[in-house]
Amino acid sequence: MSKLVVRAFSISLDGYGAGPDQSLDDPMGVNGMELHAWVLATKTFRGTHGGEEGGDEGPDDEFARKSFDNLGAWILGRNMFGPVRGPWPDGEWKGWWGEEPPYHVPVFVLTHHAREPLAMKGGTTFHFVTGGIEEALKRAREAAGGKDIRLGGGVATVREYLHARLIDELHLAVAPVFLGRGESLFAGIDWRELGYECTGSVTTPKATHLSIRRKD
Amino acid sequence: MSKLVVRAFSISLDGYGAGPDQSLDDPMGVNGMELHAWVLATKTFRGTHGGEEGGDEGPDDEFARKSFDNLGAWILGRNMFGPVRGPWPDGEWKGWWGEEPPYHVPVFVLTHHAREPLAMKGGTTFHFVTGGIEEALKRAREAAGGKDIRLGGGVATVREYLHARLIDELHLAVAPVFLGRGESLFAGIDWRELGYECTGSVTTPKATHLSIRRKD
Repeated sequence: MSKLVVRAFSISLDGYGAGPDQSLDDPMGVNGMELHAWVLATKTFRGTHGGEEGGDEGPDDEFARKSFDNLGAWILGRNMFGPVRGPWPDGEWKGWWGEEPPYHVPVFVLTHHAREPLAMKGGTTFHFVTGGIEEALKRAREAAGGKDIRLGGGVATVREYLHARLIDELHLAVAPVFLGRGESLFAGIDWRELGYECTGSVTTPKATHLSIRRKD
Repeated sequence: MSKLVVRAFSISLDGYGAGPDQSLDDPMGVNGMELHAWVLATKTFRGTHGGEEGGDEGPDDEFARKSFDNLGAWILGRNMFGPVRGPWPDGEWKGWWGEEPPYHVPVFVLTHHAREPLAMKGGTTFHFVTGGIEEALKRAREAAGGKDIRLGGGVATVREYLHARLIDELHLAVAPVFLGRGESLFAGIDWRELGYECTGSVTTPKATHLSIRRKD
């Protein structure tokens, strides 16, 4: 069966997946972009998002590349899709990624407010799910055709799926920075009791990559 | 001037420096010993504490060995010295380490209850300080003769010195385990605002070693 996976999810040394005071100018929160320095520099990211040449190879790039392996669908929290809050005022906001988002598969967006599916160039269709995390996972699994489903975030959404023990595997990238405040991935969640264990660590100058799985 | 340093201080992936429910049987808290697996296996630890031959060499051992470099004094929270709470009933408890503790320098123990200094074999003298963390540091600095002062813990004591910005350098060893609950080194402390930064990371199968310093 397809797995629900979190990959290339960046956190700080003190466990924050986003900085405080998120806004349209600061979608990752104050200093939050520092968490992502490792991936922004990779050959994979520059090729996928920037259309640029070059970039780091090595373990950071390998983790970035493998984060797209065998994906049949994505799930995103609403804030990952955009800054719009409350009912959708119109169909104008179509995500952060322009006309051709880098997903190329169905993407299920968690929201409290219904909206028609939105088909983009390159095979990405955004589906808006109002029935909660289990419904989103069920629909993503149907759409994924046996491939894996990647949970993109944000922190609050990952925490919800963790609490429900629905995540099979995670790759966390711990950036060598302190954020001090923000959204914690660990506070108030007993990862051990939920059955998660770390199966490997790889460190580069820009991140420590942790491989984590749920024991059966 | 001598520095106040924290070295070989082990925490979990989720930031706990000790497990929950500490007791005489479980002085590190439930599952807390898992944090220390990296150091227990080193040649340095086995030679210092166990009088045993052998043990791991490599980065874990190097960090263990360097954790004793250039030390002129130690500071310990009371729970690091022993399980006795409240006024000292008698002079019977002399620490966890037997007749010849592995310090070989003056050790300042934070306590609310006065007690006469306790001279042990091998150069260790325990001094009991009732005037708080700044007094302990002042006395340790006088005793250290220009060498560094190592703050041994526990978590609550490290948090107090951090809040006061009195720690110059830390070496944290992040064990690849989740504790889920326990004493957090990060919750409610803004390391970034306090001026701490990570200057290096080294990973072995048993720990990720973080070098951290306070910016001036």
